[in-house]
Amino acid sequence: MRRLNLALAGLAATLVGTAGATLGAGAGSGATNASPIYGVTIPDGYRGWELVAPALEADPLNELRAVVANSVAIEAYRAGTLPFPDGTVLVKLAWKRAQSPEFEPASVPGASTTVQVMLKDSKKYAATGGWGFGRFVDGKPVDEAQHQTCFACHEARVQGHDYVFTRFAP
Amino acid sequence: MRRLNLALAGLAATLVGTAGATLGAGAGSGATNASPIYGVTIPDGYRGWELVAPALEADPLNELRAVVANSVAIEAYRAGTLPFPDGTVLVKLAWKRAQSPEFEPASVPGASTTVQVMLKDSKKYAATGGWGFGRFVDGKPVDEAQHQTCFACHEARVQGHDYVFTRFAP
Repeated sequence: MRRLNLALAGLAATLVGTAGATLGAGAGSGATNASPIYGVTIPDGYRGWELVAPALEADPLNELRAVVANSVAIEAYRAGTLPFPDGTVLVKLAWKRAQSPEFEPASVPGASTTVQVMLKDSKKYAATGGWGFGRFVDGKPVDEAQHQTCFACHEARVQGHDYVFTRFAP
Repeated sequence: MRRLNLALAGLAATLVGTAGATLGAGAGSGATNASPIYGVTIPDGYRGWELVAPALEADPLNELRAVVANSVAIEAYRAGTLPFPDGTVLVKLAWKRAQSPEFEPASVPGASTTVQVMLKDSKKYAATGGWGFGRFVDGKPVDEAQHQTCFACHEARVQGHDYVFTRFAP
């Protein structure tokens, strides 16, 4: 049934296009701050979670990023547990890359751009590798069309790491 | 006395130069894993501390970096408390910037390069703005000459932020 819901949501999103899609409720959540399709919200307290790794995204985004994760995720990373267990939550923070005004060789975080969430629930999100996705700008989820791209990209690109790009930085 | 010790250590370091300086003991610590001049060690459990901000350091270092901090520091950051209170500890992790093999626009952490520590003790380190410094490669402190450069650079460059470059990323 979940798989069917996801498939229907995807089809509807394709038909509706990107303008004001509000089909997230079809995935079981009516919360206005929940992502379309998946019903994922920004987890409380994530800014205090442990660091998995920083990253740099080149132009045109030109962003500094950092993935933080809850304790379930960190334990799995440290133990090398794959797939990640249910309850894993990963949050990627992103900021515009800015020139440090005090040290020329350094780039530092500028304005916050997006917060992106991956939440593992192997039953609820069975159709997408066990992962629910949420992409947020200013605390609000982006549209359904953008959320259609999440799993397709992770599935196509990540090699042997349970659809998770980010590895634990030593 | 501490100020005198620091001054003497600095003078001695200048005379000795960079080769195999082991004058750290003169600053009051004989621990082999403690930094010269300051006697600062890598704090236990720092890898699990909260993120302050990521950064990118351009060539020739070409490194991704992330500053994490203990709870004293995080509270000060969030409250905007300056100067940072005694007991503040900041740790900067650094890795070679590597190309993501799975997503072309992304750079990710490669090999770990340095771990750098700032520890606030306004009495012990009164001669250096209240900060003790430690720079470590493979868990071992680098030489005295390198440690001579820490405060001079922070003092000359940081503007109105208690000698701390890194701001809290929103």
